[in-house]
Amino acid sequence: MQATPRVAQALRLNLAHSFSTCARLQGASGLKINADRLWETLHETCKWGESHRYGEKTTETGMARLTLTDDDARVRRWLAAEVEKLGCTLSVDQMGNMFARQPGKLKSAKPMTAMGSHLDTQPRGGRYDGILGVMAALEVLRTMKDNGFSTNFDIGIVNWTNEEGARFPKSMCSSGVWAGAVPIQKAWNLQDIHNPDVKLRSELIRHGYLGELPCDATSGFRLGAHFELHIEQGPILTDSGRSIGIVQGAQGYRWLAFTIKGKDAHTGTTPLSARQDPLLAASRMIAASNDIATRHDALASTGILKVPSNASTNTIASEVTFTLDIRHPLDDVVQAVQKKCLEAFTRIAAQDGKGVTFDWTLETDSPAVRFDKGCIASVQEAADTLVGPNGSMPLTSGAGHDSVYTSKHCPTTMIFVPCKDGVSHHPTEYCSPEHCALGTQALLESVVHYDSFRLSQGTEV
Amino acid sequence: MQATPRVAQALRLNLAHSFSTCARLQGASGLKINADRLWETLHETCKWGESHRYGEKTTETGMARLTLTDDDARVRRWLAAEVEKLGCTLSVDQMGNMFARQPGKLKSAKPMTAMGSHLDTQPRGGRYDGILGVMAALEVLRTMKDNGFSTNFDIGIVNWTNEEGARFPKSMCSSGVWAGAVPIQKAWNLQDIHNPDVKLRSELIRHGYLGELPCDATSGFRLGAHFELHIEQGPILTDSGRSIGIVQGAQGYRWLAFTIKGKDAHTGTTPLSARQDPLLAASRMIAASNDIATRHDALASTGILKVPSNASTNTIASEVTFTLDIRHPLDDVVQAVQKKCLEAFTRIAAQDGKGVTFDWTLETDSPAVRFDKGCIASVQEAADTLVGPNGSMPLTSGAGHDSVYTSKHCPTTMIFVPCKDGVSHHPTEYCSPEHCALGTQALLESVVHYDSFRLSQGTEV
Repeated sequence: MQATPRVAQALRLNLAHSFSTCARLQGASGLKINADRLWETLHETCKWGESHRYGEKTTETGMARLTLTDDDARVRRWLAAEVEKLGCTLSVDQMGNMFARQPGKLKSAKPMTAMGSHLDTQPRGGRYDGILGVMAALEVLRTMKDNGFSTNFDIGIVNWTNEEGARFPKSMCSSGVWAGAVPIQKAWNLQDIHNPDVKLRSELIRHGYLGELPCDATSGFRLGAHFELHIEQGPILTDSGRSIGIVQGAQGYRWLAFTIKGKDAHTGTTPLSARQDPLLAASRMIAASNDIATRHDALASTGILKVPSNASTNTIASEVTFTLDIRHPLDDVVQAVQKKCLEAFTRIAAQDGKGVTFDWTLETDSPAVRFDKGCIASVQEAADTLVGPNGSMPLTSGAGHDSVYTSKHCPTTMIFVPCKDGVSHHPTEYCSPEHCALGTQALLESVVHYDSFRLSQGTEV
Repeated sequence: MQATPRVAQALRLNLAHSFSTCARLQGASGLKINADRLWETLHETCKWGESHRYGEKTTETGMARLTLTDDDARVRRWLAAEVEKLGCTLSVDQMGNMFARQPGKLKSAKPMTAMGSHLDTQPRGGRYDGILGVMAALEVLRTMKDNGFSTNFDIGIVNWTNEEGARFPKSMCSSGVWAGAVPIQKAWNLQDIHNPDVKLRSELIRHGYLGELPCDATSGFRLGAHFELHIEQGPILTDSGRSIGIVQGAQGYRWLAFTIKGKDAHTGTTPLSARQDPLLAASRMIAASNDIATRHDALASTGILKVPSNASTNTIASEVTFTLDIRHPLDDVVQAVQKKCLEAFTRIAAQDGKGVTFDWTLETDSPAVRFDKGCIASVQEAADTLVGPNGSMPLTSGAGHDSVYTSKHCPTTMIFVPCKDGVSHHPTEYCSPEHCALGTQALLESVVHYDSFRLSQGTEV
């Protein structure tokens, strides 16, 4: 309904009819998700945490459902009740991760095929990031139950705790603990950013979400696969007129922090040749990093630049700090861009006046991730059936997701659907009912396809 | 004593002997200032306001003598007493400007030849900026009295109120009122930056410095000429091995404030081609402004750049603001640099991704000033006698001074002496005893020479 003209056209071309009534949401499974129920359920549960109204419609608000707040606890209790209605077994681990498990026909002890995402949001977040993935998973199970359909292997839902890291500052926090990348004591001790007396663990206890099950990929709740439906959070699908992104993996990225030191000086009395101007040098460095990234088809971005608070129009600052975020699907390219940037920065530091000095630290190093070929093939198959070969495209996730951590321990991939103008982490974040439904149908088709694939590999897979 | 090797060498070459004993401070006047008395008086009076100690010596502190504070009032009362001891008449105008007048031989009613500067400092200022000019003027009058020397026309001292604009935010505030460039009500209503209840006028009253005399170049205390000795506040004299700067005028300058608007976006999910990155654009603009200024032999400087306070490493900012300070001795060049910058900025705004928009405002427009040829000739004559033709150089003032305003109404020039490393507006600001003495002797020679020049023009001049 609010899709851009290009997307609307793409949908018409690929889907032959509007599927606002779900008439054409038909894949190989023979099942059809209920688009209206999905939309209503998603927005009904947004009453817990809705905030930042920007329009008159009921759905025209953002969300402020920070992890383990009262509103987050309310939606958790609601989800627990819903999955139990469906006949699922619910497990909660020591990080409050919620695992709902629906038995398959094989009654296999093998780990379930999971559909996971998160119900927490940024303080000025939207109604789709994470929420869509969990609500879609629920709709998939509801559709299966409506149709008396059972997968071969067990199937289920995961709600990962504190994905956003907005209240307790560690993104993908609990999938990180599950994957063994974040020590549980460190995660438990995370402090509420506004109240250091409140810890993540104390909030788990307060809401009754400190489970006994270890939060561990091998000794805790194991997963046979992890599929995550998510809004793209970027403009690529919209700009290319595609409606499904088949996520091949996650970009590698490195975050560097630079400090450029010069000397404060009067702008009127100091010749250019006598200056040591760190803001001029930083400006040239930022421009150079963009040029280098462009040549490597990579991303280089500066989000933060600081000059001292006593800066004035007629004083050259003595010191400037800035961040540099370098990304590419290949780690080698990330490294190459970093190397070229450091070489350029060294030249720039000596370039103007009497030169500046700089040093830098590596703040974050997140290597590239390749998702599982079998999972990707299942999503490709689902997309081909639903939107045809021109309706989908391979994408690499630019942002971090719980799936990056699950991919370390089980076959994983993600499905992206367009969000309006690529906007996320903002109240106006928007994914149309059509795209929510399409993504959910693709999720259903993918897990059904993957379930068959697992069977084809033998019941021991 | 703390002069750099190059300056020390220059002094040796030009002055034949060290003049730390003032043995060689001999110009055409036949008078010789007392360098020790000058140094001692200057630093003795810095007890009122000394702050920010940086070394062990008595003189190794900065100053925090903000205008019309108790310390400023103390040094004003001390100055009043000293000039009265010399036989001067003291006048105080409605802005608290202090005019000390010593009668000349002619008993002429013509306005006096003034030696002026200011006794107020920045909150983290030094012991020489402004203070040297007033103390040097006092030493000139003391030297004349010691020698029974009288000028033809009246001569005297001006202490201008609130030159720094650091407490009441208007630089060259009271010379500006005197020159008719700043309305007195506006100046009187200036608020203390830390306490809006305290106004400049209420502080004048509190200290007894709200005079009855109009603060006006024509209807108030008129000046026949204005000579100001000041530290250079830049590195040009030191770097060129000269010890006297003969100031030809003041640079024109324009202060522009730019706002660059883009769109916030995730650094990991937004391709470069889809971005509207205002920090990247601002960086390219700052770099371009420097390149343009270099080609025009002008100055272009950015002192302030701000990104929103919620900036993060992985978010492209939505808006960036920065300042641009363009300077050159010729207004035409200032205008040309501004024009070229705006043209370049327009190109840059469209250059990356989906482009950004920008607007700008002119915050300050200060046209170039040419000082008086007669005054300049007197300083040149003094310099040639004291340091020879290789010991001085013509300079253009890069900073604002009270002399810029006095030049609108009376023949004016300035004398610059080197300050260590070009540093000013900082506690470590330093002018050696030798340079303080040399500048003071040059001031004496200049006013005596100008006094003769006035006489040569007839007593009606």
